[in-house]
This record gives sequence, C-alpha cells and structure tokens, in this order.
Amino acid sequence: MRDAYHEELDSIGEGLVDMARLVGSAIGRATTAMLDADLKMAENVIAADQKIDDLQRDLEARAIALLARQQPVATDLRIVVTSLRISADLERAGDLARHVAKLARLRFPDSAVPRDLQATILEMGQLAQRLMAKAGEVIITKDVDLALQLETDDDEMDLLHRALFQHLIDDRWKHGIETAVDVTLLGRYYERFADHAVSVAKRVVYLVTGEHASELQTESTPGAPVEGA
Amino acid sequence: MRDAYHEELDSIGEGLVDMARLVGSAIGRATTAMLDADLKMAENVIAADQKIDDLQRDLEARAIALLARQQPVATDLRIVVTSLRISADLERAGDLARHVAKLARLRFPDSAVPRDLQATILEMGQLAQRLMAKAGEVIITKDVDLALQLETDDDEMDLLHRALFQHLIDDRWKHGIETAVDVTLLGRYYERFADHAVSVAKRVVYLVTGEHASELQTESTPGAPVEGA
Repeated sequence: MRDAYHEELDSIGEGLVDMARLVGSAIGRATTAMLDADLKMAENVIAADQKIDDLQRDLEARAIALLARQQPVATDLRIVVTSLRISADLERAGDLARHVAKLARLRFPDSAVPRDLQATILEMGQLAQRLMAKAGEVIITKDVDLALQLETDDDEMDLLHRALFQHLIDDRWKHGIETAVDVTLLGRYYERFADHAVSVAKRVVYLVTGEHASELQTESTPGAPVEGA
Repeated sequence: MRDAYHEELDSIGEGLVDMARLVGSAIGRATTAMLDADLKMAENVIAADQKIDDLQRDLEARAIALLARQQPVATDLRIVVTSLRISADLERAGDLARHVAKLARLRFPDSAVPRDLQATILEMGQLAQRLMAKAGEVIITKDVDLALQLETDDDEMDLLHRALFQHLIDDRWKHGIETAVDVTLLGRYYERFADHAVSVAKRVVYLVTGEHASELQTESTPGAPVEGA
C-alpha cells in the first residue's frame, strides 16, 4: 500500500508541475495578446484558464482522498498539505493571467499599453513567465538554492513595477486616465503573479527544511507601489 | 478521545471567528484612517496585521496537528481542510486591509481619496466590513441562506467599484494621475477583500452541502473593473 501511496503522491506532484507549466504559458501568451492586441490569443488564454481550474479541483480532490485513505503523518502529511496550498497559489496565478488577457480583449483593437511602456510590460511578462518556470522546477527538484533565487527575481519585478509607476506619475504622462487605470491594474497583476510564484517556492522550502523562509516575502511591495521608491 | 478532538475542532472554529472579527475591524479602521488621514490609526492597523498573521499560523499548525494525531475521515476531514482554506482567505483579507492603511500612511497628511469620492469609498469600506461580519457569522451558524446573501452583497460591491471607475475615467476628473492610481488600487483592494469574504462563505456552503456553490463567484469582476459597465 505504501508504494501505491507514494505513486499517487508523485502523480499529484506531476499535476502541480503541469499546472505551473500551463500558468507560465498563460501569462506569456496573455502578455503577447496585450502587446500585439491579439484578440484570438486573448480569448484562447481566457478559455484555457478553465483547464487550470479543473486541474486544481482534481488535484485537491485527490489530495483530500489521500488524506482520508492513507492518513499520512509527519513528512508525508506535510507534503499533502503543501500540495493543497501550492495548487491554490497556481490557480490564483492563472486567474491573474486571465485578467491580463481580459484587459487585452477589452481594449481590442487597441493595446491597453502605450508604446513607451511596451518594453517594460514585455519585461514584466517575461520575468513572470520565468519565475513560474523556476517555481515548476523547484517543485520537481526541491532545490532550496533555486527556490531562494526566486526572491532575487522578485526584487527585479519590484523594480520594474516601480519604474512603471514612476512613469505613470511623471508630469509628462500624456495617455489619459483610462490608460493610467489599465496600466495600474496590469502592474498589480504581474506583481501578484510573481508573488504567487515566490510563494510556491517558499512552500517547497518549508517542506524541505521545515522552516518558514521568512526572508522570502509573499508580497514584497504592499500598498501603493510608489511607496519607498 | 473523540470529545477532546471535537473540542479542539470547535476551538479552531472559534479562532477563525476571531480572525474574521479582527480582519473586519481592520478594514473598517483602515477606511477611517484613509478618509480622515489619521496616521496613528493607519499605523495601528498595520501593526495589528501581525496579530492576524500569527493567529493564522497558529490555527494552521493546530489543524495540521489534528490531521496527524486524529486522522479524521469524511466530514471531520472536510472540516479541517476547510478551516485551512478559510484561515488563508482571512489572512489575505487582512493583508488587503493593511494595504489600505499603508496607502493612508503614504499620503498623510493628505487623504488619498478626493472629496467627491469619499462617500463611495466610505460605502465600500462599510460594505467590506459588513461582508466580513457576515462571513464570521456564517462560520458560527453554518447558515447556508446567510452565506448565499453574501453573493448579493458582493454584487453591491461590484456596483460601487464600477461607479468608482466611471468617476475615474470621466472627462471631468481633475485630481491628476497619482490620485487616479491610488483610487484604482483602493478599488481593487476593497473588491478583493469582498471576494475573500464571499469565498469564506462559499467554503462553509461546501462544507454543509458537499457541493460547490458555483453561483457564488470568488471574483465577480475580473480584469478591468470598467468591463461590462
């Protein structure tokens, strides 16, 4: 029975890695849809989020079934509970990718992002995708050093986020309020997406070391992003 | 042993109700701090969030200890897993109250909210607090009808949120970009706070009925809030 148990546990782990891959792809495609005003791709990302949600529900149900059937203790219990939390982070990150895609759809045939901010948004989107790819790798490898790298990557996201807001509140801003609102929300979506990737890594660190990686903040720039800038 | 078990389960439930009370109070006080530019109250909300986080960590540890020690199945297992999720929702809602307070602190001695939006923000703050009070009551009573009421209340939050954004993108907006950014973020914080209260209620419904209250959406206005307005 223990073997079947560990096989199921491995299979749940693989499901989480699949989720991370889908979510990483979603934020990449949502960013492209946004920058290129590609309606079809935006629709595609929005529709694909349902698959991520279904995958999460399935993984959760299986994790809870494992708890009921096998009644794990110690490390095994910690793995199952951590899986539940990681799947919730990934599902939420998927929602944020969908939000980006919905904004792309809303502003079609225009892009919500003015030309002078496209490079910054592209960087944020690419960084978000890399962070999620690393989070997936951390789930597979349980590599604590790699997990800690996500913190540094997230600092980079914070810098981009601040640059975005500095640009927004610059006197020379000429794109009007609606675009400012769009860009504010976009910045928040990417920042939160990155937070969830960091959170996944943090949960793996806790699993491996038994200690909360308190130096890994779940949300590094709370409140107004211009704060401390 | 079963009696001690159910006592511990009840005690965890009481802890969740305490958390809901603290979080509801936090959003109320954060709103006051924001509207009155009350720095002391803002600092107070920010500091108090640590207590909410500590409470969550404690409740989580106790829920996991219960799983390990008592190995519950069926309904009892579902209660423990639901408690873990509810505590995560409440912790996150507490963070959002802290974000509002941080924005109040950042703009002190000014208020981040212009006069012509103070009434709307006050309504959003009060509604958020009522939603959380109801969520706490739902945890205690497990009243499914009351839980479903939160959905209607959340619709009201969506209307307020849309009104806020309509005001923002109105041509007559004269408060500049920085205030537009602040108000955009504030609107998002209240909306997400309400979502977490609805999510708590939804989880209780699932616990009681065994069915996902799919009519209770976790996030009712994804993407740009002006969408569909």
